[in-house]
Amino acid sequence: MNANSERYVVGVDFGTLSGRAVVVRVSDGVELGSAVHEYAHGVIENTLPGTDVRLGPDWALQSPEDWREVLRNAVPKALAVAGVPASQVIGIGTDFTACTVLPTRADGTPLCEIHPDRPHAWPKLWKHHAAQPHADRINALAAERGEPWLSRYGGKISSEWEFAKGLQLLEEDPEIYAAADRWIEAADWIIWELTGVETRNVCTAGYKGIYQDGRYPSADFLAALNPGFADFTGKLGHELSPLGGLAGRLTARAAEWTRLPEGIAVAVGNVDAHVTAAAADAVRPGQMVAIMGTSTCHVMPSDRLVDVPGMCGVVRDGIVPGLWGYEAGQSAVGDIFAWFVDNCVPAHYTRRAEAEGVSIHDLLTSLAERQPVGAHGLVALDWHNGNRSVLVDHDLSGVIVGQTLATKPEDVYRALIEATAFGARVIVETFEKSGVPVDEFIVAGGLLKNRFLMQIYADVLRRPLSAIGSDQGPALGSAIHAAVAAGAYPDITHAAAAMGKRTPRAFVPDPARADAYDRLYAEYRRLHDHFADGELLHRLRAIRNEATA
Amino acid sequence: MNANSERYVVGVDFGTLSGRAVVVRVSDGVELGSAVHEYAHGVIENTLPGTDVRLGPDWALQSPEDWREVLRNAVPKALAVAGVPASQVIGIGTDFTACTVLPTRADGTPLCEIHPDRPHAWPKLWKHHAAQPHADRINALAAERGEPWLSRYGGKISSEWEFAKGLQLLEEDPEIYAAADRWIEAADWIIWELTGVETRNVCTAGYKGIYQDGRYPSADFLAALNPGFADFTGKLGHELSPLGGLAGRLTARAAEWTRLPEGIAVAVGNVDAHVTAAAADAVRPGQMVAIMGTSTCHVMPSDRLVDVPGMCGVVRDGIVPGLWGYEAGQSAVGDIFAWFVDNCVPAHYTRRAEAEGVSIHDLLTSLAERQPVGAHGLVALDWHNGNRSVLVDHDLSGVIVGQTLATKPEDVYRALIEATAFGARVIVETFEKSGVPVDEFIVAGGLLKNRFLMQIYADVLRRPLSAIGSDQGPALGSAIHAAVAAGAYPDITHAAAAMGKRTPRAFVPDPARADAYDRLYAEYRRLHDHFADGELLHRLRAIRNEATA
Repeated sequence: MNANSERYVVGVDFGTLSGRAVVVRVSDGVELGSAVHEYAHGVIENTLPGTDVRLGPDWALQSPEDWREVLRNAVPKALAVAGVPASQVIGIGTDFTACTVLPTRADGTPLCEIHPDRPHAWPKLWKHHAAQPHADRINALAAERGEPWLSRYGGKISSEWEFAKGLQLLEEDPEIYAAADRWIEAADWIIWELTGVETRNVCTAGYKGIYQDGRYPSADFLAALNPGFADFTGKLGHELSPLGGLAGRLTARAAEWTRLPEGIAVAVGNVDAHVTAAAADAVRPGQMVAIMGTSTCHVMPSDRLVDVPGMCGVVRDGIVPGLWGYEAGQSAVGDIFAWFVDNCVPAHYTRRAEAEGVSIHDLLTSLAERQPVGAHGLVALDWHNGNRSVLVDHDLSGVIVGQTLATKPEDVYRALIEATAFGARVIVETFEKSGVPVDEFIVAGGLLKNRFLMQIYADVLRRPLSAIGSDQGPALGSAIHAAVAAGAYPDITHAAAAMGKRTPRAFVPDPARADAYDRLYAEYRRLHDHFADGELLHRLRAIRNEATA
Repeated sequence: MNANSERYVVGVDFGTLSGRAVVVRVSDGVELGSAVHEYAHGVIENTLPGTDVRLGPDWALQSPEDWREVLRNAVPKALAVAGVPASQVIGIGTDFTACTVLPTRADGTPLCEIHPDRPHAWPKLWKHHAAQPHADRINALAAERGEPWLSRYGGKISSEWEFAKGLQLLEEDPEIYAAADRWIEAADWIIWELTGVETRNVCTAGYKGIYQDGRYPSADFLAALNPGFADFTGKLGHELSPLGGLAGRLTARAAEWTRLPEGIAVAVGNVDAHVTAAAADAVRPGQMVAIMGTSTCHVMPSDRLVDVPGMCGVVRDGIVPGLWGYEAGQSAVGDIFAWFVDNCVPAHYTRRAEAEGVSIHDLLTSLAERQPVGAHGLVALDWHNGNRSVLVDHDLSGVIVGQTLATKPEDVYRALIEATAFGARVIVETFEKSGVPVDEFIVAGGLLKNRFLMQIYADVLRRPLSAIGSDQGPALGSAIHAAVAAGAYPDITHAAAAMGKRTPRAFVPDPARADAYDRLYAEYRRLHDHFADGELLHRLRAIRNEATA
């Protein structure tokens, strides 16, 4: 591997608001430089760029040109920061939010660049939620027909995914649907831009495209949804490329954009969460990586296929080739704390934080961390944005129990942090109870820097937490995939072992606190199971929806 | 009654932090002048006045001299404000917080004026909660022995009452217990000060002194609690005086204090909540008066005796002679809203309220009142200070269900107001289901000025609300009792009809909103019944208590 110490790869992470490029040494994964480029259009939620065409509620679009700009700006900048000669770069890899999906012509031209005034011609961002009625119909019909793929997704596909968004496209703008030769994940489209070759990665096809056991849902099923939808899978790719595979070579045009050498290896597209497993060197069976930010995504390879209740998905080769890739999730984590800080912390705390020169989060933490476990007398359910795993129910909502006239903001803040830790424990226990061992819990993502929260997770989970050693996990993971695609390593596992970064036992549980949390977790579990049927919470939501209709 | 138009009575209301005197015209109840005197010592919670003797947690004492000062200051001031010659005042009546109780010598001298350095020598204010263990033992033994009086108090007496506080006195300071010739409610002690005659009113004897069917708990029962306690009722009064009765005549000393004529009528002592019924002209069977402030007290006369589950007490002649007086309560109402405003409303709301020159309560109201019923998607249990009626459980705590990342402070604020209205509905329905009709719901107290809250109560209760016509209800009620004691009216009912003030149909339910609330109330009721057993909430409290021990 000596040659690798003078060879470099570039990883590019396409996020929700910006793209980040990082330059990484092939031999050991050292990150030499990085750069971020903010999307000019960010998330398009109100009107289409350059028009006054308004979007409906729950719409969320992006601009392909914003993505190209990341290649043109962030990549050369990262290279310059790293001080690495472009000639020593041997490959580039990318990861994307998903399911972020767009209609294109057969040559890859995005339809929004032909029909900029048609909302449905634009890429639909992962958090476009206007296809919920279509997802509901897909789920109802699949359940009714007993479609074999349904159990691979916890019994429900999401409104965010390819088929729901595609059905919405057909039914709301049949002309654009007809004009769409392709319906392609941005994760794959960006590879097309880099290589001139159309590929489809196994990860998004499996997790977002309902590709299971070598096929998509049947034309028969699709026709039953809408006769015009029977041909939908013709717009998808039927030959899938493995993760870490070589998608193609960098074209002259893309070389000019990125200032990288023409002809270097371009890795098969991937998803931000899944690619992080490589960055944490956590691609072996039983290594669960929790990417903790506004929400949490859990990805874990396993050598066995089991129906684990409430998964987001289980996909063969979905994280690394040769293993089943499980994905689970908590639909709000950091978002709950941000909501609390924005809406529920009084002015005298804000003033005190200002006086002490700390953030409100820090002030609440300093007050909450002094408490013995259970001293606040509270237990909460972390369902403020529904429950992804293990209940797969977007219409659940938050519960908090035990408030008194003496309850302080830091009490509730701590209880909400604990609630998310309990939620994580439910997921881990559900895996293990189903016969899928979780040997190691590895944390990545923005919440990793919150040591107070991490310690609570260690105590609640009663296990040491490993920590990723990079704060740009997805970009590093993409760079690792690039190294594999370039042939520097035989596979992702070897590359991750050399280039990934993981600190074992970064947070170790305290036995006394863990015991105390066992008692609180038992209460969480009871509350969870009581409200899990959604009876009361669904009725409240129905009342709300009728009242605001 | 013509003569009454030039005759006046004085009512004095002894509250928690101050005393208020009002001068009232006998003929029609017009309030001509009033004055307030703040207690110099307020609530004594930390150290005994003039000493460095520290008090334990949950202690709350008062100073008898503070009460005398109300007579010396507020009464003459009110008279001066009213511009009424003292010679035309024919009587004085008083009401007190209860159970506020003190040990005295046989001549009425408070023991704290002999032993100012002994905590147990001082009057224990109603909210002295340090006798909870003693109340627990009384309740357990009474239940075990099947004491016949227990069901008259919803199955549990309060730690605030005479027997719990008395047992604490005996066991923690037997010398002071032995020195106490009397154990007397402040409501009766103040009459002693005014008249030189010891009396005991039927109201506190019944509601706070467990006097039922002509007797106190048996010496046998008391001895089983503690052999030294067998003689306890010897310190109480065994001859009770009826409400509205003549306790005695104003002494020369008290006339000098008050600047009122020596020899005028002094009414039998009474309790602030119960005396308000007269002020609202609501002393007939089925007229429920809700005195709504930090907490709510419900008092209602009825011609029938029934075991209504979860009452605070039912006492013969307890509100007016000849009827059963029912008392129920909600242990926190305004306190919950105050807690919310102090602890849960963010700085940007505080700034906005300041910019608009309104209170935070007003800002939240203006935002919340625009919402259709149920639009916030929330339902809460109003148990932040336990539940007095109908669950009689101080160890319950608050619950809120349905929060999302879109939940705003005004949503929770409104849900908490609604929760207290639902709590009131549970009480009304429990009475009616038990066979005690509630014909009219009359509101008194500080929350009456909150029109938004009142409309919610009308909508939730599905009935028109009557409103008391005075914002000094207890003092007016005491003045009415004074008029009866002075012989200006034959009884309280007649006096209340002439002098009390009630606006029927002050708030009228909207049928559509009432229908919408029926659905939300059904959810409240389910939540209420689910958590009513206290299982989870008691365990959380036990965890809290152990963690903070």
